[in-house]
Amino acid sequence: MTYRKIDFELLRAIYEIIPDKSRVLTEKHDLISYSFDASFGSFEPEVIVQPLLTEEISYIVKFANQYTIPIYPRGQSTSLSGGPLPVNGGIVLDLSRMTHRLEVYPDDLIAVVSPGVLTGDIHKAAEQYGLMYPPDPSSSAVCTIGGNLAENSGGPRGLKYGVTKDYVLGLTVVTPSGDIVRTGGKTIKNVTGYDLTKLIVGSEGTLGIISEAVLKLVPKPKSSETLLAAFNEIETAGAAVSKILTSGILPSKLEILDKGCIHSVEAYEPSGLPLDAEAVLLIEVDGHPSATKEEIIEVAEKCKEIGAASIKIAESNEEKNQLWKARKLISPAITRIKPTKISEDATVPLSQIPEMFKRLKEIRDKFQVSLVVCGHAGDGNLHPNIVADIRDQDEMERAEKAVEEIFRCAVELGGTLSGEHGIGIMKAPFMEMELGKEGLHLMKVIKEAWDPNNIMNPGKIFPYTAQGLLFRR
Amino acid sequence: MTYRKIDFELLRAIYEIIPDKSRVLTEKHDLISYSFDASFGSFEPEVIVQPLLTEEISYIVKFANQYTIPIYPRGQSTSLSGGPLPVNGGIVLDLSRMTHRLEVYPDDLIAVVSPGVLTGDIHKAAEQYGLMYPPDPSSSAVCTIGGNLAENSGGPRGLKYGVTKDYVLGLTVVTPSGDIVRTGGKTIKNVTGYDLTKLIVGSEGTLGIISEAVLKLVPKPKSSETLLAAFNEIETAGAAVSKILTSGILPSKLEILDKGCIHSVEAYEPSGLPLDAEAVLLIEVDGHPSATKEEIIEVAEKCKEIGAASIKIAESNEEKNQLWKARKLISPAITRIKPTKISEDATVPLSQIPEMFKRLKEIRDKFQVSLVVCGHAGDGNLHPNIVADIRDQDEMERAEKAVEEIFRCAVELGGTLSGEHGIGIMKAPFMEMELGKEGLHLMKVIKEAWDPNNIMNPGKIFPYTAQGLLFRR
Repeated sequence: MTYRKIDFELLRAIYEIIPDKSRVLTEKHDLISYSFDASFGSFEPEVIVQPLLTEEISYIVKFANQYTIPIYPRGQSTSLSGGPLPVNGGIVLDLSRMTHRLEVYPDDLIAVVSPGVLTGDIHKAAEQYGLMYPPDPSSSAVCTIGGNLAENSGGPRGLKYGVTKDYVLGLTVVTPSGDIVRTGGKTIKNVTGYDLTKLIVGSEGTLGIISEAVLKLVPKPKSSETLLAAFNEIETAGAAVSKILTSGILPSKLEILDKGCIHSVEAYEPSGLPLDAEAVLLIEVDGHPSATKEEIIEVAEKCKEIGAASIKIAESNEEKNQLWKARKLISPAITRIKPTKISEDATVPLSQIPEMFKRLKEIRDKFQVSLVVCGHAGDGNLHPNIVADIRDQDEMERAEKAVEEIFRCAVELGGTLSGEHGIGIMKAPFMEMELGKEGLHLMKVIKEAWDPNNIMNPGKIFPYTAQGLLFRR
Repeated sequence: MTYRKIDFELLRAIYEIIPDKSRVLTEKHDLISYSFDASFGSFEPEVIVQPLLTEEISYIVKFANQYTIPIYPRGQSTSLSGGPLPVNGGIVLDLSRMTHRLEVYPDDLIAVVSPGVLTGDIHKAAEQYGLMYPPDPSSSAVCTIGGNLAENSGGPRGLKYGVTKDYVLGLTVVTPSGDIVRTGGKTIKNVTGYDLTKLIVGSEGTLGIISEAVLKLVPKPKSSETLLAAFNEIETAGAAVSKILTSGILPSKLEILDKGCIHSVEAYEPSGLPLDAEAVLLIEVDGHPSATKEEIIEVAEKCKEIGAASIKIAESNEEKNQLWKARKLISPAITRIKPTKISEDATVPLSQIPEMFKRLKEIRDKFQVSLVVCGHAGDGNLHPNIVADIRDQDEMERAEKAVEEIFRCAVELGGTLSGEHGIGIMKAPFMEMELGKEGLHLMKVIKEAWDPNNIMNPGKIFPYTAQGLLFRR
């Protein structure tokens, strides 16, 4: 596919669609600012457009489709898989200023949101009505719901509450031909035709641009309890996860941190994590007050039975908050070890968690990489983080090989390449390994049927020739 | 599309694929037996094939695709929307004998099932491990999981637990070209490419044939409580639904029965429903024992505040079971009024439930039809049932008009044509009303890209010329 470059004449056409010049950026420093996200690689767009209305998006897409110009939707660029990177230049559609709707309808148990709204702001808005929007990616304070929708973001509540997709009832979408389409609606049950809502959520901006969403809310649980269990072997912690999950209790969060994470966090900001432990589990149960009180004690007993070195139930809200803050600090904390963080999200069936930990240890030793592991153990979604220094190209090469082996292990154990970060550009070369030729083909034909000119976020999900992990310069 | 008729030579080719002649049916009485489902209309297939293996399905589909023969997957034919009807003749693929896998993996919180397995048998298998498969359509004792997957079946637990789609992690699918593809996997989180699993579930057999599924299970709640509240006006019952749902409690079931349902059930089998009520709500909360005990009392108080005429909390398991059995008896009971039951499933946003009840009353009066209403009030999924006599063609014409008006009202109130029964042949003509031209087009291009010869359950979902409700002979 050859794309047309944006010349002076085409730029003038863009100004006709968006007459407000402050929302059309073309300066060199703008192009550089929009050339990266939280993953690897750097690609400059030709122009950045900041739409405020669905209709503006529609006009821009129609224009891009007419002239075969690639178009890259973007929120706050927290993507860990290269989702918004403009790998073919063209237009970056910055949706972060599209924040005009954040409305909660408590009688319908829904919220209607614009794509630029921060996920954390949806949490706050819902809580004002005693409601909850469960998906809570670690970046929720700074990421947009539009990005969450494009990537189908997860977070620690996946086990009990599911992921972003499970809370999307309807969408307003601008299709690759620029049509404005509404999918789904405002009801929990809807079987009218194919589920385009759930096809588009998680399609990483390759099938259309989401300009509005109807989200499902649930009553906010009245109570929660948090427990910290320390283990002398990481395998025992893994076994504890299985033991808890088969006990009849469904924790709202079940996180694991290995020694590397614990030490990094404590060095970054002392949070009361035990420095002598090989791993800790951080567990939350939520629901009715009398239920959570009993359940957290049951969880504690299960941890003890399986051999936890120590167990501590948080006794105040401050203690709870401190523990969960520690969990959110892992990401900044581990970059103190080394500056370049490669954050993976290989996901395995629950019973394979202990085996996956064993394999990760082997990978660390084999490739001599700094590998620390945290993750949403309760839903099998581990985060093996490799920290390295991008200036050390030999180390980056070893990291690349280690990551490839992590992918292979996850798929071998019946899991998946990506649990919540998305495929983007980085994992595209590994798609066929998991999906097979035919599975990938079924996806490709949808893409080609909807977007014959391949203008919507091209270069993502589907592998193209000579594409690699981009860790090395 | 012109389809090729199955002549002697083609039949011989089918026998080569399925040498077991007892699994290839061609007798007239077989063709008649497979010509109908639980909806309207009757269409004879040319041959019925009963595969036992995914590979057999693959061969049959490849054969059908090569010769352009329509192929109609079918389970136990409980469809209320004409899903399995062979409207263009061809091959009915009877999957009801494909029952070899029903395996629960408690450590992974999953079950792996073959399409012919009865949904009720999955419930029983999961319960043996203290687990639960939440979707529970009223027909669960007699319907197959394959049909549930094709139609994305719902049932009373939709509000708290979601529908079939929310419990499908992965599929084995035979595509319209006969390829065997695996989608998704065994993990709760999976964002590797487009979500083909959730696209295929609910696609009513038009995108492929599901030959195996990986289902998500949850810990079975340890306790449940049931309450029956009677109301003198149906609008008050509707208001009570809103009041309960905004109180912070999420009932596991919240069903409504109007006077017509109550009287029919009591005449059919006395179940303790109050004959003097205009409507009753039947409410279940589930979870931890101490939580459910408190919550059911809170629910009772909310009902009292809003003006319930009487409230009764079930005091024993027998009482609970009797009440829920009464709910399941509605369907057979109302056909005592008149023999022909037209069961709709128009669904509206929660806040529109009282308005929808008002409109249903108006429709009943306007078209002079016997309209009784039950439904899953908690998720906005009402079941307006029109009972009539198919021999009275004038009455059937009025029923047809009433149903069209029900569809229009649901869409007008921000709802949907179908919450859980599917589109099939009966609602296909109304698709554009809800989806718009562009929305329907996006679905059509997927169908055409995957199934260019239109052999997979043709005549369903997408409207074709001169298609009507088929109520009249």
